[in-house]
Amino acid sequence: MARVSVVMGSRSDRGLAEEAASILREFGVDHEVRVLSAHKNPEELARYIEASEAEVFIAVAGLSAALPGFIAAHTTRPVIGVPREVRLGGLDALLSIAQMPTGVPVATVGIDASKNAALLAIRILALVDPGLADKLKEYREKRASNLQDE
Amino acid sequence: MARVSVVMGSRSDRGLAEEAASILREFGVDHEVRVLSAHKNPEELARYIEASEAEVFIAVAGLSAALPGFIAAHTTRPVIGVPREVRLGGLDALLSIAQMPTGVPVATVGIDASKNAALLAIRILALVDPGLADKLKEYREKRASNLQDE
Amino acid sequence: MARVSVVMGSRSDRGLAEEAASILREFGVDHEVRVLSAHKNPEELARYIEASEAEVFIAVAGLSAALPGFIAAHTTRPVIGVPREVRLGGLDALLSIAQMPTGVPVATVGIDASKNAALLAIRILALVDPGLADKLKEYREKRASNLQDE
Amino acid sequence: MARVSVVMGSRSDRGLAEEAASILREFGVDHEVRVLSAHKNPEELARYIEASEAEVFIAVAGLSAALPGFIAAHTTRPVIGVPREVRLGGLDALLSIAQMPTGVPVATVGIDASKNAALLAIRILALVDPGLADKLKEYREKRASNLQDE
Amino acid sequence: MARVSVVMGSRSDRGLAEEAASILREFGVDHEVRVLSAHKNPEELARYIEASEAEVFIAVAGLSAALPGFIAAHTTRPVIGVPREVRLGGLDALLSIAQMPTGVPVATVGIDASKNAALLAIRILALVDPGLADKLKEYREKRASNLQDE
Amino acid sequence: MARVSVVMGSRSDRGLAEEAASILREFGVDHEVRVLSAHKNPEELARYIEASEAEVFIAVAGLSAALPGFIAAHTTRPVIGVPREVRLGGLDALLSIAQMPTGVPVATVGIDASKNAALLAIRILALVDPGLADKLKEYREKRASNLQDE
Amino acid sequence: MARVSVVMGSRSDRGLAEEAASILREFGVDHEVRVLSAHKNPEELARYIEASEAEVFIAVAGLSAALPGFIAAHTTRPVIGVPREVRLGGLDALLSIAQMPTGVPVATVGIDASKNAALLAIRILALVDPGLADKLKEYREKRASNLQDE
Amino acid sequence: MARVSVVMGSRSDRGLAEEAASILREFGVDHEVRVLSAHKNPEELARYIEASEAEVFIAVAGLSAALPGFIAAHTTRPVIGVPREVRLGGLDALLSIAQMPTGVPVATVGIDASKNAALLAIRILALVDPGLADKLKEYREKRASNLQDE
Repeated sequence: MARVSVVMGSRSDRGLAEEAASILREFGVDHEVRVLSAHKNPEELARYIEASEAEVFIAVAGLSAALPGFIAAHTTRPVIGVPREVRLGGLDALLSIAQMPTGVPVATVGIDASKNAALLAIRILALVDPGLADKLKEYREKRASNLQDE
Repeated sequence: MARVSVVMGSRSDRGLAEEAASILREFGVDHEVRVLSAHKNPEELARYIEASEAEVFIAVAGLSAALPGFIAAHTTRPVIGVPREVRLGGLDALLSIAQMPTGVPVATVGIDASKNAALLAIRILALVDPGLADKLKEYREKRASNLQDE
Repeated sequence: MARVSVVMGSRSDRGLAEEAASILREFGVDHEVRVLSAHKNPEELARYIEASEAEVFIAVAGLSAALPGFIAAHTTRPVIGVPREVRLGGLDALLSIAQMPTGVPVATVGIDASKNAALLAIRILALVDPGLADKLKEYREKRASNLQDE
Repeated sequence: MARVSVVMGSRSDRGLAEEAASILREFGVDHEVRVLSAHKNPEELARYIEASEAEVFIAVAGLSAALPGFIAAHTTRPVIGVPREVRLGGLDALLSIAQMPTGVPVATVGIDASKNAALLAIRILALVDPGLADKLKEYREKRASNLQDE
Repeated sequence: MARVSVVMGSRSDRGLAEEAASILREFGVDHEVRVLSAHKNPEELARYIEASEAEVFIAVAGLSAALPGFIAAHTTRPVIGVPREVRLGGLDALLSIAQMPTGVPVATVGIDASKNAALLAIRILALVDPGLADKLKEYREKRASNLQDE
Repeated sequence: MARVSVVMGSRSDRGLAEEAASILREFGVDHEVRVLSAHKNPEELARYIEASEAEVFIAVAGLSAALPGFIAAHTTRPVIGVPREVRLGGLDALLSIAQMPTGVPVATVGIDASKNAALLAIRILALVDPGLADKLKEYREKRASNLQDE
Repeated sequence: MARVSVVMGSRSDRGLAEEAASILREFGVDHEVRVLSAHKNPEELARYIEASEAEVFIAVAGLSAALPGFIAAHTTRPVIGVPREVRLGGLDALLSIAQMPTGVPVATVGIDASKNAALLAIRILALVDPGLADKLKEYREKRASNLQDE
Repeated sequence: MARVSVVMGSRSDRGLAEEAASILREFGVDHEVRVLSAHKNPEELARYIEASEAEVFIAVAGLSAALPGFIAAHTTRPVIGVPREVRLGGLDALLSIAQMPTGVPVATVGIDASKNAALLAIRILALVDPGLADKLKEYREKRASNLQDE
């Protein structure tokens, strides 16, 4: 059963969705990946969210990125939004995802930062899964000694 | 029967919704005003859109303004989006409304420009209503001789 | 007779104008494409607008994109503006097109979003043309099952 | 024992910290509020984070808001960052908090959106606390029928 | 006969137009002030420009400030554009005025900088009017010893 | 004798300086091109400006583009500033050139718009040179029938 | 003899200059304050810089803030630039001061952050003045226990 | 013994760190280069700073660039921050570095301007090292006669 659901609004977001999925795989977290758009299949998306047993949602979207907010409106579980750079350096997507009205929070990560979205999901799941917390510490130590990456 | 539906995402948008309504009244266009949020009552909003017989929707929203896109996703009638200034001079709302994905167009007007939203709705309705077209010409002439307003 | 007039301010906008035209063709909407600049041939442009029987205008322009507003000032029919990215990610054109003064509304779509401009024109024409409304529903369904595109 | 730690970088952030705390109180979530700056008392802040048993951190900061990232670097628990508007409409703080390097995720909420930060923390805690999940649903329903607030 | 024509697009620009006029008066330069909008009275504006014997035009406009470019398109005399702050700190007007297409130059000054627009007009007129050049030097010296003003 | 002086702050601006020069050549306007930096050879630049008999200065500069303002501070003749795109899409240079303090006006053209800078210089010179005014009209007509260029 | 020279470009910068001076006084650092503009008295400013025995310059300026770069071009001593908010939230001044060409560095501090400019100057002077280093440590400790201020 | 410490937050900053180092070498200034991240090895970084005898720190970082501020919080010596362009043209890093709270100043240079960071460090060291001051003058003269570079 998927503990994390990675939803992208368009097949063009697939690269970022896959980066999130690869981190989840590395940590051994069950997950599933879906392509569902808040603007193109809202009913199907709403049904998917309500049927899903995922504990955390990761939503990747560009431009006027309504997907994360849409999911947050249909669940009370935590939703992580990844703004994808399509235009304006991704500023449109960042603002569309971060500037949510009171009552419908979205946990926004950086532009194209789907790896961080996965790591944030794991931090959340680790609250009740000590094994994941240990893996996060290992991961952090490995990165501390290898500052290759942005 | 309302030919134009003016929807706002929050009661704080009421001032702008009322400005649009006052223009519609001035042109004798039947309309209704609703407070319905894409983030707070999505199902109710979806039902409202599907039941509505409005020919044109005007949607006023601030911040990560998902309302106009949500309506455009649930109808094939034209949707006009009014970005409201809440933060960042309204740039967040402008980008959230304008930068829609292909297939789900929103007719965006300027920041806080709900009067223009109403005038755009009237231009659309005037395509089949010669009386409205005449009133638009009068309105334009009146404004041309009285450049009071931004 | 052209129901939609697609006007571009410069031959460099031709790619976007053609994208709009291809959508209009796909929906069987008569249209014409013109290259006329608000800054370079204002009188010719004004005469063209006044002589045109188009029900909707689509205007594509970059930089300080005056074309859509110029057309909106010379007609009471709806005008759709497409900001083209030339500099600053297209922010200059987006602001120049969206931030119109009261009385002269332009229906702004996203940066380079000329397909959405055509779809918005079709939504407007569909108000009195049930055949177009049906085609829009088909188009929407097709897109819902094929989320390839931004 | 505090389940949520609300940390602010400066006493001038107190208003936002208090808004977060009031939501946590309303949901009956134990929490504590601290004033500790990543720039002014880094060692004390590091000791506080390591000693803390909080499951979730909320960090409020303005300008070059290093606080949320600092906390995220010293714990593997989830950290929520609230950018406070001091200059440039809060854009500096939003970018400083959201644009974290890979490996150190921060869950960013909107500018000054400390209520949403608290609600996001509650969504996270509700994953293992069915009572909180029920309260979130009630809260959502209450808001859906009362769209007062931005 | 007016050597400088100060045109504003709306009566709300009157304050800035008056600041320009006061500098022109101080330098003894004949000028006239008009309220004419590129969007609201384009034909009247075109006729005015063509009939005008002004050597330099100063155009004050806010938002999607088409006025300076409109004038530049209807004359080969120099046109100075003053972006007025209405929204977004005046960035929309600045970009609308500065980012003109090749062939239609506008001399843009800073946001709300109508005094500088007048001084620039005087620099231009001073090329053939040694008296003005002398007054500019005096003005500059006076300012150098009195750095009161931004 | 050079009627227009084209000054660039760095050899990397040469492309834009050459574009301005080619327009001036096309109109038969005597001009000279110099590489002189406000930051690297301020005294030499100051001496050059004071010795110059140019009627109009065109200054090309990127980043924190102080060159146009420096020239405007050392002459009472008109100075045209061309912001060059080096970083941030050229926004830094545009703001550095346009936002001059009262008393020291610079005629700013668009980002990288050195052709327009030359055409603006010609408009200024044409005030006392009817031959140039005629050439500007021809140029404008040629462009009106050939909308190739941005 | 003044070890730090605080220069402002306009009397309107006086508030910020005074804030810097008050910190310098608090640390017992000899300093002087001058009003001299890069745009209005360039020669006088150049003479002042060359005659000055200040070890560090602090330059406060708004808009297209050329003052810090001008000073940096006339000395090889360190220059600290304080962007003052006048328009656009101070973004114009920040970019004008920070984005200097290679070879002419300016140490930019935050918008209106003249206190930090003074503290940076003191850090520099403290390299050869152990007393100042001690006072900086005390100051830091005092602030660490009193997080009142932004 | 290193007089200047060049610290980068990630190996991807190496190019900029190396540019700074090459200037320091050219001036014969002892220096060392380290890869240490405020987010990934905060304790190691803190120990490094405290143990370091460097007189000046140069910190290169992109995105939400906390490194320069972190160093400034752990030392009273001057810290120079170089914002690296990774996203949004480097605006995120520039704001993260420049907008420091009162009490913790960072000397910010332009985006990717690590050469200027080195030159600023040398200006600081030259206050007590007349040889360096002479080399700075030579360097400046060489650049004045060779305006190749931005």
